[in-house]
Parts: sequence; C-alpha cells; structure tokens
Amino acid sequence: MSPGRLAAFADGVFAIAATLLILTVDGAVGGVGIDLGAELKHAWPSYLAYVVSFMTIGIMWINHHTIMDPVERVDRRFLLANLGLLMCIAFVPFPTRLMAEHIRGAGAESAALAYGFTFTTTAVFFNAVWLYASRGGRLLRADCDPRVVAGITRTYLPGPLIYLAATLVAFASPTASALLFLAIAAFYVVESSLFGGRQTAGD
Amino acid sequence: MSPGRLAAFADGVFAIAATLLILTVDGAVGGVGIDLGAELKHAWPSYLAYVVSFMTIGIMWINHHTIMDPVERVDRRFLLANLGLLMCIAFVPFPTRLMAEHIRGAGAESAALAYGFTFTTTAVFFNAVWLYASRGGRLLRADCDPRVVAGITRTYLPGPLIYLAATLVAFASPTASALLFLAIAAFYVVESSLFGGRQTAGD
Amino acid sequence: MSPGRLAAFADGVFAIAATLLILTVDGAVGGVGIDLGAELKHAWPSYLAYVVSFMTIGIMWINHHTIMDPVERVDRRFLLANLGLLMCIAFVPFPTRLMAEHIRGAGAESAALAYGFTFTTTAVFFNAVWLYASRGGRLLRADCDPRVVAGITRTYLPGPLIYLAATLVAFASPTASALLFLAIAAFYVVESSLFGGRQTAGD
Amino acid sequence: MSPGRLAAFADGVFAIAATLLILTVDGAVGGVGIDLGAELKHAWPSYLAYVVSFMTIGIMWINHHTIMDPVERVDRRFLLANLGLLMCIAFVPFPTRLMAEHIRGAGAESAALAYGFTFTTTAVFFNAVWLYASRGGRLLRADCDPRVVAGITRTYLPGPLIYLAATLVAFASPTASALLFLAIAAFYVVESSLFGGRQTAGD
Repeated sequence: MSPGRLAAFADGVFAIAATLLILTVDGAVGGVGIDLGAELKHAWPSYLAYVVSFMTIGIMWINHHTIMDPVERVDRRFLLANLGLLMCIAFVPFPTRLMAEHIRGAGAESAALAYGFTFTTTAVFFNAVWLYASRGGRLLRADCDPRVVAGITRTYLPGPLIYLAATLVAFASPTASALLFLAIAAFYVVESSLFGGRQTAGD
Repeated sequence: MSPGRLAAFADGVFAIAATLLILTVDGAVGGVGIDLGAELKHAWPSYLAYVVSFMTIGIMWINHHTIMDPVERVDRRFLLANLGLLMCIAFVPFPTRLMAEHIRGAGAESAALAYGFTFTTTAVFFNAVWLYASRGGRLLRADCDPRVVAGITRTYLPGPLIYLAATLVAFASPTASALLFLAIAAFYVVESSLFGGRQTAGD
Repeated sequence: MSPGRLAAFADGVFAIAATLLILTVDGAVGGVGIDLGAELKHAWPSYLAYVVSFMTIGIMWINHHTIMDPVERVDRRFLLANLGLLMCIAFVPFPTRLMAEHIRGAGAESAALAYGFTFTTTAVFFNAVWLYASRGGRLLRADCDPRVVAGITRTYLPGPLIYLAATLVAFASPTASALLFLAIAAFYVVESSLFGGRQTAGD
Repeated sequence: MSPGRLAAFADGVFAIAATLLILTVDGAVGGVGIDLGAELKHAWPSYLAYVVSFMTIGIMWINHHTIMDPVERVDRRFLLANLGLLMCIAFVPFPTRLMAEHIRGAGAESAALAYGFTFTTTAVFFNAVWLYASRGGRLLRADCDPRVVAGITRTYLPGPLIYLAATLVAFASPTASALLFLAIAAFYVVESSLFGGRQTAGD
C-alpha cells in the first residue's frame, strides 16, 4: 500500500468521525411538544462539546498530514499503529456526548475522565505512529531535513502529558478539566492564527 | 498539505453531512402499528427540509471547488478557516431536523432562527476562507485572472447578508423565512439551469 | 471542477448511503431482555431489504462510472443534475426501513410505493444526467465511439419505466412489488455474472 | 472503471463501517439521571466489541489492498464480487452491537452466531474476490510474481474455515467463541508487529 492510500483512508475516518459529532447535538434537543427555544438554550454544552471535539479532530487531521508528509513507504506495523490511532479518533463522538449530557450533573467527573482518557490515548498513538516512522528514518524519504523531523518529534512528544494532566484535573474539578480541553484546542487555533501564515507549496 | 488533499477532505465532510440528512426524514416517520400512508403524508416538511438542505449543501460544495480551483498552496490559517467552514456544514443536519419537526408548531420561530443562523455563519466562513486566500493573491496561482478573482469575491460577499435577512424574517413569520431559504436554493438551481451551460475544461 | 472530483464526491455519497443501510437492520432488532434468536429470525425482511438496497445502490454506482467514463468536462447544469441524482441515492435508506418494517403489515402498500417511487425518480435523474452529457456529445470526449454512447442510452432509457411498473404493482400486491424490486437487482447480478467477464483496461 | 476507483470506493465503505461502530458503544450508555461511572464500567463489552470489530475491519482493509495491488483491470463480475464483500463489511456494526448487548445474557449464543456468521461470509467473499481475479491471472498484471500470487491464495484460503470454527464454538460456549474472535484479531496484530516490518515501496 502507498502512503497516499493510507492518508486517504485516514482522511475518511477523520471526516466521518467529525461529521458524526452532530448526532451529539441532535440527541440533546428533544421532540415535538417541548418549548424549543428554552430547550435550544439549555443544550449549550452540546454546542461547545461539538466545537471543541470538531476542532480537536480537525487539528489532529492537520497533524496527521504533517506526519504523513515525509513518509515515503509504509509497512504493516505502521498500518496497525495508524489503525490504533484511527480507532481513537472514531471513538471521540462517544465521550463528546457524555461531556455534553453530564458536565452539569452528577456524572461530570466520569464524563471528563472518559473525554480526557480518549484524547490522551489518541496522543499516545500519535507519538507511536510518528516515532515508529521516524526512528532512524525508517519510513521517511531519504532527503528529509533532520531538523524538520526533530521539530515534529519535539512538538508531539508533550501531547500525552498535556492531555493526561487536563484529564487528572477532573478529579478536583470536572468543569476545570473541560475548560482545559477547550483551552488546548483554542490555543492551537490562536497560535496558528498568529504564526500559521507560512505558505506550504502545493502539489 | 496540498490543496488537493484539503479539497478531498472537504468533499468527504460535504458528502457525509448531505447523506446524514436522511436521518431527519427517517426520524419523522414512526414505527410499526401506525397508519403509514397518513404518516408519510404528514411528514412532508421533512422531505422539503431534506431537499432544501441537500441542495444548499450541494451548492456550497460546488462553490467550495470554485474557491479551491485557483488556490495553489495552503497554510495553517487557511486550513483552520476551512475547518470552521466544515464545522458549519456538518452542523446542518441538526437545524434541518428542527425545521422539519417544528415549522408547523410552537417552535417554528426558534427552528427557523437556528436554521438561518447556521447558514449565515456558514456564509461568513465562506467569505473568510476566500478573502484570506485571495487578499493580495496570498494563496492563489500567479497566473490567476484578476477579473475572475474579483468576480468570485463579488458573488460571495452578499451571501451572509442574504441569509441574515432571511433569518431575521423569522421574527415576523417563520414560514416566510422558511420559504426564503427554499427560494435561495431554488434561485441558484434555476439560475444555473439557465446560464450554467458554460463548459469547464476537465483535468 | 474536473469530472474526477465529481466522480469522487459521488463515490462518497454512494458509499455512505449504502453503509447507512445497516441502521435499518439495526433498528429492527430490539434491546436487552428479549428472545434474541426469535427476534433475529423475525427480522428477516430487514436483511432482504438490506441486500436489495445495497446491491441496487452498488449497481447504480457501477452505472454512474459507466456514465462518467466518457465525460471529459462538466458544467453547472451537469453538476446540478448529479446533485439531484445523489439526493435520490442518499434517500434510499429511508424507504428501505419502511419496506423492512411494513411489508408484512397494514403499511405494506405505502412502503412499497415509497420504495418504488424513490428508485423511479433515481432512474429518471440517471437518464437526465446521461442525456444532458451525451446529447450532441455536449460533455463527452471527442473520440467517443458513437455506438458505445448509443448503447448506454439504450440501456438506461427503460429504467424509469421498469421501476414505475414494479411500483404500480404495489396497488395490486405490495409483496409482488417487493419481489419485482428483488428480481430487478437479481437480474442485473445474474446477467453480469454470465456476460460481465469483458475486461476493462485499468488506468 | 479503473482498479483505483474501486479501491477508493471500497476504502470509503471500510472507513464508514469502522467509524459507525462507535454507535454501538454510544447506545450502550444511557441518558441523564443514571450513575454514569457505574454505567461506563458496566458497558465494557461494548468497548471490547468496538476494538475487535474495528481491528478486524481494519485488517480486512489492509488485506483488500493486498488483493487490489496486483489487479490491473476490473470487469463487472469482479465489481459484483467486491460489492458482496463490501455488503458484508457494512453489515459488521449490527452483529457488533448484538455481541456488546447480549454476550452476558440469554441471547449470547444468537449474538455470537450472528457475529461469526458475518465474518465467515465476509471471508468467503474475500476468497471469491481474490480467486476470481487471480485464477489464470485473469485480472492481474502480466508481470506478477506467481509466488506472491500463490502466497496470497495460501494466506486467505483458511479464513472461512477459521471463522466458521470459531462460530460453531458458540453452540458450546458463546464466551469461548467471542474470545476466539478476539484471539484472531489479536493474532494478526501480534504477528504483524513481530514480522510486519518489511517495507513496502511507496507510489
């Protein structure tokens, strides 16, 4: 299999998982016979959960292409590591619904833990995928700039720890944990808006 | 990342969001033991909502390719603006169901506002994506015809205002607002049928 | 837009619509606490509906590529006709569920009419798409074999009538109508198995 | 149609079916007002079913590319055999839910039979697809290494029997059957991790 086909398959899972997130919002607003206006206002956590999860999946999609860009060939181990990563991405709609439904209730801690654990595991697989491909240049193009490779490693390595920290905060305060997940996504968006203007050549 | 990969990912989200719209229709018709014929007739707003939302997403998909056509390279800001746009597209199935369920009831105003607000925000992101790419030719091919670029800008700029106007009509009459959304989609279809015969070279 | 991008978008809608059909089967078998074995046997119409709809969508996907093969360029009218076609394809999961749930009950006639009307409309759009592209060679490659073009026209033209006839049979007997939809799909599979061995050059 | 387009369509179905598996997990955890922590723990079979089905679909996706790699041209029979295979893949989310819901209850045997029968049929179609393409080199590139072709045949031929055996175990013990499905997926992952480091040239 070529890296292009793997990237296309991954794109599909990223796109479907992100689009399925709307079922969370859809499930938060009931049927006929209710006060729709009040219900729509009351459902605000589901909108927020939708935005945070969509942007997080979107950012991970961008990062996945950063990983795949210097990859020249794939082997079965690399494919399996990617399947593990995609299994996490496809899992995201579930804890997103839990967050939307429970962050204001008694289940807030469990919801935040499920949400955070999902992203922590995702970040671990991200590193596994990248480290397997890049260690000793195993699957990379020969002409890869070692500084770029080291830069990617440096950027992704703290991911699991950051998500784990935000997750553990849920034991003290699930709301604070939720705000941290929001802040992580917002940080990337703001940082990219400020410094993300470097142009990438098209192909 | 290449513009081609971004366009393919966007195609995926457009296609999935459009196809998920059928869940709106599906949810409008109940289970076994009902008078199915009567139920199917009573569900007509869900068919209409399906058609209007499907065509609107479809038209936006066509327009997205009009935008991507002259784009030669992408940067992270452009990717994020596109993620924002796709987040709106993926949101459409939710207000579509609200319209289908509530346009005949007490929630009509809220449903029309949710529907219109979604499309207004989508149109805003459309302009953000295009203006970011085209301002000073930032991400466009060097040989782009400036008149074509100006033409695209002129075509998309009124979008947010048109959708906002149709949305605000809901405060006076949700039904009139719904008819306007129908008219906007129908106008594009009719206009394209009359003048859309100009051939585009394949590649 | 290139014909390739249109074909890829269409592939997406075909694939998603076909895969969503499983929700019909899933909805036919209840939750915990039931006699699962009996329930699984009782749900046989949903398996049959799944197979017939999946194969029909699959055959239409193959036919869509037969149409797109000689197409060299697209215009907005052609894109809109394709959107209409895809709107029908994405609609299929809904009447499929109706068939699965109601073919043994009082709603059988309504279900068969909805199912047949969907495929009749789909066949009409199929012809619209093809006739628009092929009339006077409008969107076709210049080197297209006119006999191949005439052959495609001859093959697709009876489609709407065949589906309409099978649909109208539902007024006399919904079961007979359902068997006809099954027969149409089975005929294509058998006919292709017998005569479908002609090799197509890859590209 | 080109083999590339078929592979892309198949990728779509594989990706959507795998991503829809999350609905199984989502359905296993109830709404507001429950003890979420306890509910999340109680739902562990749904996580396990998610992982086993996701990895099995993922492995079959990898294998499908192994099949498509030496295929140079397609005919209608080959397309239909592939549609049959994809019809099985798209079916997987249904028995996955049955396993998740019933493996601890009275429906365990029925659930395990449904799960196993789905994968057995899938493995049969896998062989049908491959044997049709490879018999006498019918659809393969002329320069295919006959040893590679024979190796693929040898690898896939036992599939149906292995899945059938694991399925029939359900009559004695549904739990043992479920563990066998888990073991089959785990075996492939472990085997690939140990021996899957052979690099594949990119294209």
